[in-house]
Parts: sequence; C-alpha cells; structure tokens
Amino acid sequence: MPVFNGEYLINAQGEDVVAGIRTPQQITIEGSKRWAALAGVSEADRKAKYPSLEETMPTVYKELFDIQRNLEKHYTDMQDIEFTIQDGKLWMLQTRSGKRTGAAMVKIAMDMLQEKLIDEQTAVLRCEPNKLDELLHPVFQKEALDKATAIAKGLPASPGAATGQIVFFADDAEAAIQKDTNAKVILVRVETSPEDLKGMNVAQGILTARGGMTSHAAVVARGMGKCCVSGAGSLNIDYKARTMMVDGKKYKEGDWISLNGSTGSVYEGKIDTVLPELSGDFGKVMELADKYARLLVRTNADTPNDARVARDFGAKGIGLCRTEHMFFEGDKILAMREMILANDETGRRKALDKLLPLQRADFEGIFAAMQGLPVTVRLLDPPLHEFVPHDEKGQKEMAKIIGISEKEVHERVLSLAEANPMLGHRGCRLGNTYPEITEMQTRAIVEAALNLKKKGIHAIPEIMVPLPGNLHELRLQEVVIRETADKVFADYNDRIEFKVGTMIEIPRAALTADRIAESAEFFSFGTNDLTQMTYGYSRDDVAKFLPIYLEKGILKNDPFEVLDQKGVGQLLSMATLKGRSTRPDLKVGICGEHGGEPSSVEFCHRIGLNYVSCSPFRVPIARLAAAQAAIKGNQ
Amino acid sequence: MPVFNGEYLINAQGEDVVAGIRTPQQITIEGSKRWAALAGVSEADRKAKYPSLEETMPTVYKELFDIQRNLEKHYTDMQDIEFTIQDGKLWMLQTRSGKRTGAAMVKIAMDMLQEKLIDEQTAVLRCEPNKLDELLHPVFQKEALDKATAIAKGLPASPGAATGQIVFFADDAEAAIQKDTNAKVILVRVETSPEDLKGMNVAQGILTARGGMTSHAAVVARGMGKCCVSGAGSLNIDYKARTMMVDGKKYKEGDWISLNGSTGSVYEGKIDTVLPELSGDFGKVMELADKYARLLVRTNADTPNDARVARDFGAKGIGLCRTEHMFFEGDKILAMREMILANDETGRRKALDKLLPLQRADFEGIFAAMQGLPVTVRLLDPPLHEFVPHDEKGQKEMAKIIGISEKEVHERVLSLAEANPMLGHRGCRLGNTYPEITEMQTRAIVEAALNLKKKGIHAIPEIMVPLPGNLHELRLQEVVIRETADKVFADYNDRIEFKVGTMIEIPRAALTADRIAESAEFFSFGTNDLTQMTYGYSRDDVAKFLPIYLEKGILKNDPFEVLDQKGVGQLLSMATLKGRSTRPDLKVGICGEHGGEPSSVEFCHRIGLNYVSCSPFRVPIARLAAAQAAIKGNQ
Repeated sequence: MPVFNGEYLINAQGEDVVAGIRTPQQITIEGSKRWAALAGVSEADRKAKYPSLEETMPTVYKELFDIQRNLEKHYTDMQDIEFTIQDGKLWMLQTRSGKRTGAAMVKIAMDMLQEKLIDEQTAVLRCEPNKLDELLHPVFQKEALDKATAIAKGLPASPGAATGQIVFFADDAEAAIQKDTNAKVILVRVETSPEDLKGMNVAQGILTARGGMTSHAAVVARGMGKCCVSGAGSLNIDYKARTMMVDGKKYKEGDWISLNGSTGSVYEGKIDTVLPELSGDFGKVMELADKYARLLVRTNADTPNDARVARDFGAKGIGLCRTEHMFFEGDKILAMREMILANDETGRRKALDKLLPLQRADFEGIFAAMQGLPVTVRLLDPPLHEFVPHDEKGQKEMAKIIGISEKEVHERVLSLAEANPMLGHRGCRLGNTYPEITEMQTRAIVEAALNLKKKGIHAIPEIMVPLPGNLHELRLQEVVIRETADKVFADYNDRIEFKVGTMIEIPRAALTADRIAESAEFFSFGTNDLTQMTYGYSRDDVAKFLPIYLEKGILKNDPFEVLDQKGVGQLLSMATLKGRSTRPDLKVGICGEHGGEPSSVEFCHRIGLNYVSCSPFRVPIARLAAAQAAIKGNQ
Repeated sequence: MPVFNGEYLINAQGEDVVAGIRTPQQITIEGSKRWAALAGVSEADRKAKYPSLEETMPTVYKELFDIQRNLEKHYTDMQDIEFTIQDGKLWMLQTRSGKRTGAAMVKIAMDMLQEKLIDEQTAVLRCEPNKLDELLHPVFQKEALDKATAIAKGLPASPGAATGQIVFFADDAEAAIQKDTNAKVILVRVETSPEDLKGMNVAQGILTARGGMTSHAAVVARGMGKCCVSGAGSLNIDYKARTMMVDGKKYKEGDWISLNGSTGSVYEGKIDTVLPELSGDFGKVMELADKYARLLVRTNADTPNDARVARDFGAKGIGLCRTEHMFFEGDKILAMREMILANDETGRRKALDKLLPLQRADFEGIFAAMQGLPVTVRLLDPPLHEFVPHDEKGQKEMAKIIGISEKEVHERVLSLAEANPMLGHRGCRLGNTYPEITEMQTRAIVEAALNLKKKGIHAIPEIMVPLPGNLHELRLQEVVIRETADKVFADYNDRIEFKVGTMIEIPRAALTADRIAESAEFFSFGTNDLTQMTYGYSRDDVAKFLPIYLEKGILKNDPFEVLDQKGVGQLLSMATLKGRSTRPDLKVGICGEHGGEPSSVEFCHRIGLNYVSCSPFRVPIARLAAAQAAIKGNQ
C-alpha cells in the first residue's frame, strides 16, 4: 500500500530540512509516531516537541493530502512534492517523480501493477536498472545478529547492512582504504557535507548523529546505494578526542561497529554479513523482466563460487571464464613460470604436463556449477610477462625450482618486457607461437567435460580464442583445438559437443568479421580492449587526461564505463552484420564490463546480439535493462 | 639501342654460371671485348682463354641471335633467355621478361617508346617503381674523385658509388653496424654465398675477386639496390691475415676503399659521395609519370635540407613536418625539458617563451625551402616522457638549470612514465591538457610565414592536429589555433592564409570522420599509428611474433611496410567517404610510411585521395606508382 509520508519544519526554509541541522517533524500522525519509536522519543515528548502537520494544522494537512493524491493519480507515479505554508495558506512549490531507494522503486512498481494503475511493461520500465544494485546489498548473518548488542537507533536512511571500524573524518576513511584496499570503515559524523563525499564513497556505511531522511548524508548515501543510519541523536561525538559516547559507553576510532540501514539500528562489534534473499517484489520484477527480455544474460566468472552466485542471480551461462586468474593460485603459478621460462618446446611441454591436471580440476568445478548451461572458456590471454617474478628473491627461488641459473631467469624475464604490452605478444599470438599451450588448455577443457559426463553432469564448453585480427590467426588455433579434442575423444572413447569461437576485440577483427566468421561459431565482443584500441586509450594511463576531458566536455562519459555507441558501437554493429552474412546462425555476445551497464545493454539489444555477459552482481541489472530495451523496441 | 648480351660456359651447367666459381665467357664479340677491357685482359689472352660464342660457334650464334630477336618482338620486352648447346645443336631452355637494373629498366622503356614499339602508358607501366631506387643512389663527388687513386677494376655488377672500411667477413660487417649504426663498411670477399646476406645488407658496397655479372654477389646486390663490383681478379685476399694484396700493395681490415658499381672501378681511401643527376631517361620517365598521375606526391621532411632534396625529386609540398625532432637539437632540448618539468602553467609559459623564437626560425627555414608549396606542420605528438633525461647525470644537470631539487626532477620524470605510451598522454591530448603548447607552436608557424611574407617568400602553412578520436578534441584545438593566429595577425597588422586539419590515425577518428570533418579542412592518414591500433600491434614489440606470423602465412606482408588494404584500408576508404559527405572539398592525404610503397600508393589512388607523402628518396617511386595507378584505373 502506498503511504503519504514527509517532513516539515516550522519557521524554516527548504534548505534547513536538507542541511540536517534541525530534526524535521513528520507530516502524518502515523509517520510521526513511527519516527518517535525509531528515535526513542516518548509520546509525550513527541506531541510537545515534534507534533505532525496532521496534528498542528489539520485543515492544511487535508488540503495537502488531496493534492498529493491527485498528483500521483495524474502522473501514475510516486511524487516528490515541495510546499510551504504561509499564514495558514498552502503554497505548492514543486512536484516531480520521487527519487527512491531500490526497494521502494520495486515496491512502488509492483504495488501499482497490482492495483492495475499500470501494466506489466510500464512496471518494468518504472524500475531503474542501476537502482537494483541496492537490493543486492548484504544483510547481517542471522546467528551473528542474534548475538549482537544494539547500542543506538537512528533513521533507516539508506538500506543494507555494513560492518567496519570507526573513523570520524572523511580523509581518514580515504587513507585507510589507500593503505589497505580491503579495509572496512564506518564513517561517523555529527552530520556530513559535500567535502565528505570521497570518504563516504569508500566507507562501508555512514552514521550521523543529526539529520533526517532528507539530510545530506541520507540523500548522498542512497545515491551511492550505500548503507546509512542518520539522526542517531544519542551519539555524542568528540572529534578532537576521536571518540563517541553512547549511553555512557565510549567508542573510539578503530573500534568495530555495525549498521543496519534498513532499520536504523547501530550495533557494537563486527557482525558478518550475507547476501540478501532475492524473492518478494524483487523476484516479481525479475520474473517480468525475463518475460519481456530477448537478450540473454550470462556472467563473467572464473571460480565455481562466482558461477553459483551469478546463477542465483539468474545468469544463463558463463560468457567469459578467464583462465589466467587460475594460474596465480597455489602450485599453478610455479608450473606456469616453469613453462614460461623454458628454453624450448620440450621444456614447455614438461611444465604444461604439470598444469594439465590442475586446469582440468578448475574446469570440472566451474562446469559442474554451471551444469546444463554454456560456459565460454577463454584461452590464455595476458602477456607472459605478467606471470613471472620481477624481484630478485622471486627470480632466485624460480632458478632453484627450474634448475637454471639466476642470470638465465633474469635475462628471460627481461626479454619478456614490452614497450606497449597491451599491443604486444598476448592473446592468440601466444597460442600461435606456442601451440602446445592451446593443446594443454583444450585437453583440460575437453577432459573435464568428459569426466563430468561420466558422473551424469552435462557440461557445455565453448572454447574462445582471444585477440585475433585476421581469419588465419583464428583458423590455425581452431585446427589445434579440434585436433586435440579428437585425440581426447579417442583416448576416452567418448565425445562431447563443444563450440569454437572468438573474441572480437581488435578493430581489424570487427572490420573483417565476415572472414573471421568462416572459422568462428560465435563472437564475443571484448569491449574493454576494443575500446582501448578504437580510442587509442590505455586503461592504465588514461587517468592522465580523462578527468580533464570529462571536465572540458570532450567526452560525455568514461568510455570504459559506458559503451561508446558511435565509435566502438559502430564496430560492434558492423561485425555482427558481417559475421552473420557469412554464418547466419552466428551467436554473438559481449563480455566486456559494458555488459552490465544499462545503456550499453540497450544498445546490444538494438543491434541484435544474443547475450550480454557481466559480473555476477550486475546480472539482475542487465536482465532488467534487457527487458526495458525489448519493451522500448516494441513501442 | 637494345643490345644482345650474355654469358656462357663450356662443359658446365647453368648453376656453374650463377655460382661465380668460374669466370663465364661472353656471347658476342663486342661484349667479349668490352669485358676484356674492363677486366684488364689482353686481346690475345681473351681470344685464347675467353673467346665469345660468336667466335667459337658462329652458326649456333646466328640461330640464337635470330631466336632472341623474334622473342623480344613477340613479347615487346627484353627477354632473359636460357639455352644449352649439345653436340652443336641449340636447345632453348627458358625465356622470360628480363630482370634488370633500374637504369636498364628505364632505358629499355624509353628506347622502346622512342622506337614506337610501345606507347607512353605502356612505357610507364614497364618501369617497376621500387627499382627506381637504384637510380637515386649516390655518385662520387667530382673533385674528390679526381684526386682518388684507382687500384683495381672489376665488373660493374650493381650501380652506385660506395665508400667504407674493409671487412672480410659478413659477421664483421654486421658487428660493425651493431656497434655504430653510422659505420660504413665495404664487404670484400673472394665470392659471396647466401650465408653472407645479412652482412651484404648492412655494407655500403660489395667487392668480390671472382664471379661475373650473374654471380651470387652481383645478383643479390642488384636486388638490394646496393653498389657491387664483382670479379676483380687482381685482388689477392688472405682471410686469415685479414688483408688483401693488390698490385703488390697490402690493404688490411679497417682501411678505407671506395667502389664505383657503375664502372667497376675500385679506389683506395675515402671518396665523398653526392646525389645523382636526375635527368636523361630517368627524367623522361618522371615527366611521363607526372603527365598521367592524378595523385600528388608530397614528402615527409623535418629540415630545410630534406625539404630541398625532396623538392629536387619532384615533391609537391610537405605532407608531414614533425615538430618534435626539432626539439632535440641544441638548446631546444633544455627549454623543452624545462617546459615539461614545470609545475604549473606559469612555469610552462616561461619555458615556451624560450622555445618560440627557436621554433619560428625552424619554420622559416622549412617554409623558405618549400616556397610556394604547402607545408603541413604537425603539432607536438610524442609523449613528454621521450624528451626528459632518464639517467641520474641528466637529471642532476636538469635540476641545476631549472633550479629545483634532483628529487623533484626524478619524481616528475617517474610520473610521466606510462604502461602503454603508444596509447597514452600524447598527440592532441597534450594540446588539450596544455593549450599553451598549441598556442606557442601556432604562433611560431604564423609568425614565420608573416616574416617570410615581408621578404617576398610565399609560405603556405597547413596546421595539423595529431591523434584526435572525436570532434571535440579537434574543435578545442582549432579554437586555440585560430584565436592565436588572429592575435598574431593583429600584432603584425598583416595576415596569411592557412588551413587547419588533422591526422586520422585512431580507428575512432576514421569511424566518426563525418563529424571530425566539421572542424578539419584536411585529413592526413597516419597509417603507422592507424596500423598499430587497427591490428593491436605495437611496432616496438611486434618482432616477438611477426617473423613467425610471416613464416606460418598468418600474414602475407609486414603491415607496417605494405598497407593492409582489407582492414586499415577499409578505414581509409570509409573515412574519406564520410569526411567528404560533410565537406565535399576535403583534402585527403596519407603521411605514414606506406605513402612511398607502390601497392599502397595504388590503393590511395583508387580510394580517391588527393596526395601521398613519403620520405624524400621515395618521392620518385611514389610519382611513378601514382601514374601506374591512374593508367591501370583507366584501362
């Protein structure tokens, strides 16, 4: 049920409400009572100090109530209304579709759908995909929460659960993260101001002693989708001593506290968080999204755990499984280094033999987690330089393991250095110079699928060759892959179905996609690299001029966040058309980070891709964006 | 007049002639006598030991003479004929259009044209553009030659003049060049073999004691367009002692000698060389080329001297004048470093004020050399990192000059380092972050042109913005350029005409060329960078896999030598069409190294470019290639 809700202040201007210096009063009696309960204010105190508008000016309240009903009916959307009352006369200042939390957005859309005020398609369009992010935030682990001690209560200013160490200054929050990117801090302030933005951004959550639901801290935190409890009046903050007193107990900088931004509760100590339940209104929206979307949503996942999370979020397969991250774990990095530092093919094959069972086990885990859904495995992509030790100690160790001199290790490492590694010896250029790597990876993939088949688990591997710029580059790899697979089939006296396809991430691959499709059964756009090469921007270096470019308006968006439809998108569109001119059933997807960005997803729908693939937490966002794209396309 | 000419050996196979182990005899009496004179063989000795076929087997000779005349008439081209004589019977083995030196090629074409055996267009098509290179080789300076002492005579195996220090082993030639790229060596051998190829390639010239005009040394040297004197029989080479005796005088490794590959003369000492006279048959071919070519040929030149050389070779302007090379000369590098290491705009402007008069003088020199022809000046392009000292000593010196601490210099240098400098902070990204650099360069260009105007010299500057990827990037620079020019015009109370245009060298610029043409009055394709980004190849690193790619047939050519028409060329074609859809009179050229490669020049003609620009020595080659493209296009 939609509820009329709001705040007001006597003898004040609108900015006083937003500033959070005074605690505003509620419009309705119901809201006022709820606020008092949350803020720990007695009914007597509430009536005396914070009466509602409904109580203080019942006639004006009635007029305001009727106007807001008319407005919401007219706009068929929740309205964010501003008004003022002068000498008992109500003046309407502004009305606009209300900003809301992700949860409110989903609830409003589903409420209105249920009340038949809007239809299914409108309900889907009413939800802003990026806002779903807030619904995916963690909640406290139940057992941990049961043991926790609540120490204060404030307003539920921005949903989610957060745990971290107290800092009292935004700068300290930034410094803590710079020192340790895994650091978790809660920013505790009397109130916040725009100077605190960066610190708020890196904090797990924000706790303020003053201010209402529309205070700076609350508005900004909701915008960031970050947990916030505001107006917890029992906090007594001493900035100089870097402590806060709560009910006579002192908490100092560095102490752990936890916040529930959905209830306004503040707890002492660390409380573990878990991912949210994805049912209720959220589940209904997702169900509707899948009803209307044509574009499938896959995920980028390199571990069985990521694969499971994404599957729970509704991923229909893995669009990008990067094999290189696997090589950094445990013993694998040693065997990998041995392979790289080998002098010849014999040496490389010896090291690859050690890697084979390790890779096969990785693939078995991921294929099992994605059972019955396709898994696109990308063959080794990064320059070998990234895997070798660059420090003396590491090189010494490596020399001992491989049994060659330190000098040899050092020289080999130096010889791998490149002036522009982004444009260097990587991707299928590795597979074409060292086909034995492609053989090993293919064998690991195919053997994993056959091993699972014995256990009744259906694996659907799609082998993806990275970085080709012309047909032959891909064709030679395809030959190695198919011949290796045939050998494995003979060894096992059994077979599985698999596809061979390629990344389109080099401009030339897009320009000659009609040729490349002769060998590729699927295309997957690697829009990160394609953006780098189409713009001639190195992601590692772009910070030197990108901020100035955004400031001067040379660029409207960071092209690594929002797909550049005019330039990079032109290549995507061209490659899709050309590829399908050769192979009409060519499956085409995107696996760059743009796959989870709503405007980019809409573009992918428009040019007729089959799927987008994105990080697990962006999967619901992409599903909704895909549905909206389909609905808009039919309007 | 065409002449029948050739060699034969008694009791031998064809390979014995090529091997150069025995000295072959001449076919005609005339040829035999000429050979004897050059080789210093007396007429008696000639008749006794090396008689011509015309003398030994007059009937067979007559038959062979008639057959070759018929064949040349049939093919209307010089024929390279192989035959054998067994028991007095002539057997024809093979005939094909003859390989020839550049001079022979031009002479044959002009001879046949004069004899009306072929028309002008056919004459132009008969000349292979790359072979012109041989005609452009240096000759000895006349005064230096007059003073020189001839010590031996061999066969004029490959034209041109060369001077250098004696080496007796190909490896030593390579080592000398590796040690000092400016080293000049003459490779002296009894005879050469394929193992000597690399050494031959780096030597200024080749001198052999044995072998005729078709020996390995002669054939290979002609293929390389490199000076060669072969079969200088008076040389007595002692490989072990690393000396050669000539007429009782000893020359050892490291001594200077000089060769005239057009006459076969060998001189002792160093003789300075100069560029050739470009008249005669060569001049006639060039005249014909210009009659039929539609594409203009400009040059890439950064100095007045290069500009003059290119103008003499027929360049119709400068298509690329790189300003960065200028900054490395003399005091300029110090002022440049001061500018780069400055902390703020004030510091940069101070250093730029020092650079202004130096740059202006550079431009005055180049504009004067190209008087009356357009000069395209590219604004600063490379990353600033390339200009700063990376060694401790250089940084110390710099600190003293600028008056800041060594530590500050060191830190500033480090902060300029980039992961992928090719895709980094360079080109107009510099001009857009530091517009004061663009201002200084514009001022230098415009002031130079105005200063020359006072002297009655007509400069036609075209200011070229490097590396834009979208319209705004160019537009902002255009505004700076035009506003600066207006200020200079006001200062001088005079004005000049100039154009503002841009490099198209980023794939996105080609894809959005219709927008970019809103600000650009001309496009110049920077196909070096465009090839790097379209393929995703770093020129500095490509050697890691390019040889394997060529060997495996993944690539047919090195795309940095021969323009990739299917990929990069597609972008050129698209950008030209899109650019002219916005601005029908858009002038479009190419200034990458492909501008002097014949198949690339032909492609540029086909897609309708206005000009190609190449290094000075490639200008005649490009002129001929442009004519051939036009003729083929009309056939």
